[in-house]
Amino acid sequence: MSEHAVHRVAVLGAGTWGTTFAKVLADAGCDVTLWARRAAVADAVNAKRINTEYLPDVELPPSLRATDDAAEALHGADAVVLAVPSQSLRENLAGWQPLLPPAATLVSLAKGVELSTLKRMSEVVAEVADVAMSRVAVVSGPNLAREVAEEQPTATVVACGDHDRAVALQHACSTGYFRPYTNTDLVGVELAGACKNVIALACGMASGLGYGSNTMSTLITRGLAETGRLGAVLGADPMTFAGLAGLGDLVATCASPLSRNRTFGQRLGRGESLSQAQEAAHGQVAEGVKSCSSLRELAERHGVEMPLTDVVYRVCHEGVDPGPAAGRLLGRERKPERS
Amino acid sequence: MSEHAVHRVAVLGAGTWGTTFAKVLADAGCDVTLWARRAAVADAVNAKRINTEYLPDVELPPSLRATDDAAEALHGADAVVLAVPSQSLRENLAGWQPLLPPAATLVSLAKGVELSTLKRMSEVVAEVADVAMSRVAVVSGPNLAREVAEEQPTATVVACGDHDRAVALQHACSTGYFRPYTNTDLVGVELAGACKNVIALACGMASGLGYGSNTMSTLITRGLAETGRLGAVLGADPMTFAGLAGLGDLVATCASPLSRNRTFGQRLGRGESLSQAQEAAHGQVAEGVKSCSSLRELAERHGVEMPLTDVVYRVCHEGVDPGPAAGRLLGRERKPERS
Repeated sequence: MSEHAVHRVAVLGAGTWGTTFAKVLADAGCDVTLWARRAAVADAVNAKRINTEYLPDVELPPSLRATDDAAEALHGADAVVLAVPSQSLRENLAGWQPLLPPAATLVSLAKGVELSTLKRMSEVVAEVADVAMSRVAVVSGPNLAREVAEEQPTATVVACGDHDRAVALQHACSTGYFRPYTNTDLVGVELAGACKNVIALACGMASGLGYGSNTMSTLITRGLAETGRLGAVLGADPMTFAGLAGLGDLVATCASPLSRNRTFGQRLGRGESLSQAQEAAHGQVAEGVKSCSSLRELAERHGVEMPLTDVVYRVCHEGVDPGPAAGRLLGRERKPERS
Repeated sequence: MSEHAVHRVAVLGAGTWGTTFAKVLADAGCDVTLWARRAAVADAVNAKRINTEYLPDVELPPSLRATDDAAEALHGADAVVLAVPSQSLRENLAGWQPLLPPAATLVSLAKGVELSTLKRMSEVVAEVADVAMSRVAVVSGPNLAREVAEEQPTATVVACGDHDRAVALQHACSTGYFRPYTNTDLVGVELAGACKNVIALACGMASGLGYGSNTMSTLITRGLAETGRLGAVLGADPMTFAGLAGLGDLVATCASPLSRNRTFGQRLGRGESLSQAQEAAHGQVAEGVKSCSSLRELAERHGVEMPLTDVVYRVCHEGVDPGPAAGRLLGRERKPERS
């Protein structure tokens, strides 16, 4: 048995994906405690086996317990799953830091690049928790939460620089419907996860403008290509982008009507302003709206051309009309496919 | 000006994609003659500017003429576009061979691998036309015909071993809504085109079984991975599969309700037999039903593992139930993502 074997898991954050991933871990045989900010959410999980707020239709397994006390959730955990939004991960984790079990694997589910520092989530985790990067893992793949909660078959990537920890975590979350593959390329997996939200916004805009599958596929292909260019300068393994955390997650997000980023982009494509789209999304801005700023800055800093990210940024933050912007993006000059 | 500059083009085959690509060429400024097997189809194009049979809602440009006389279409052509189904390309081309202009670029739009010989379409063309492979080109990308006909923006790949011919053809079919990129990797582009129909069948089956975007994305990702494995042993450039003719075409085909292969697979997934699905498709079998046989044989010959193609083959040709087959496919043993 690996020294990193995972039995007890704390999942911190009871949103849709946090709750769903807690269910996966429990279904795989782990002893899981889900932390919810609000006592009412935790109480409902314990009493009714349902997250009334974020996953009202799905019965949760009896082995999954919930609490609003982070210390209780973290006590004795072999793995700590961080399921809070990327831009608030630093602040949340700082509060939990003193409670973290000394050897636990810290698992980030957040997708994005921190706006103020341009750091990936694993970098934020290692810094704030003050642990070696080898203790930080990431889970990412074609995992629309609702479909995973319904136990539709899918696969995912468990990435950790320490292969043994990746394997232990893989075993901890492997079920008949959820199939994890290991990878040691944290940089690639995280970049792919951040970029896909921006590309999903672009696909949503194209859909809002009335375009169909050809345009969407072209945007996905060229979006993944520019993700790969950024990845190359940051040391990612190019093959990661062709895998489940790259292509797989990207296609799931861009093709599904369940994707928040795609839906948000669709509203912008139909001519709504950022604040109108935000209002329709119950006050929330889609993750890609923030990520496009940090990714654009990261690309500029490293001299990488990311025309799709640039267009999304301008539509979101400079009020540019998406129609002509899309035309310019798709109508670049004639050249070989890779140049 | 290149010695291979393309002005006059013969498009042989007036199906949906042949007619649409003829429109693209005409919109790009070429002098195009479309050959239709039936005089009535050619007459309607000339008289009403409409292909009443295959593209009834789209007005064709006045510069596009049609004929049922192949000699007339081929006379003086700088490029000959072959737009007939892959399994009948050999027979059709044998009839046209004596009429082919001596220096023309021969362009294949057919996607598949010949059942009897396991040859790619470009190999069939070079053999039957008795020309050097450098004269054969392929056009392939995220190009659902209906959307291209509606002038929705998309991109494509023009592949030819002779880069000058590729560039000439690129110029010949470049319009505001249709953006061609050149590539010299004929093998990769053609394999991607053949394999995607098989993967689209698998995605259709998953959809027919009630699965959503996660499962589809997982199948797309793993299907593209096995396409790449076959490509590697056949000498394809691995980057082709990440591009428009690989990923791009694959996503467009798998995500769109317009895809014949996906629709056909959906029927199989719902429990219909091959002959029931064929009946619903007006007697036609989807291209992937044939391709899965030739690709499976090609993979076996070269010792390449293609589990997805294998499952599709068994469902189509051995009457295997798609439900348990999909479960086995998605539930392979735990391992690293690339192994």
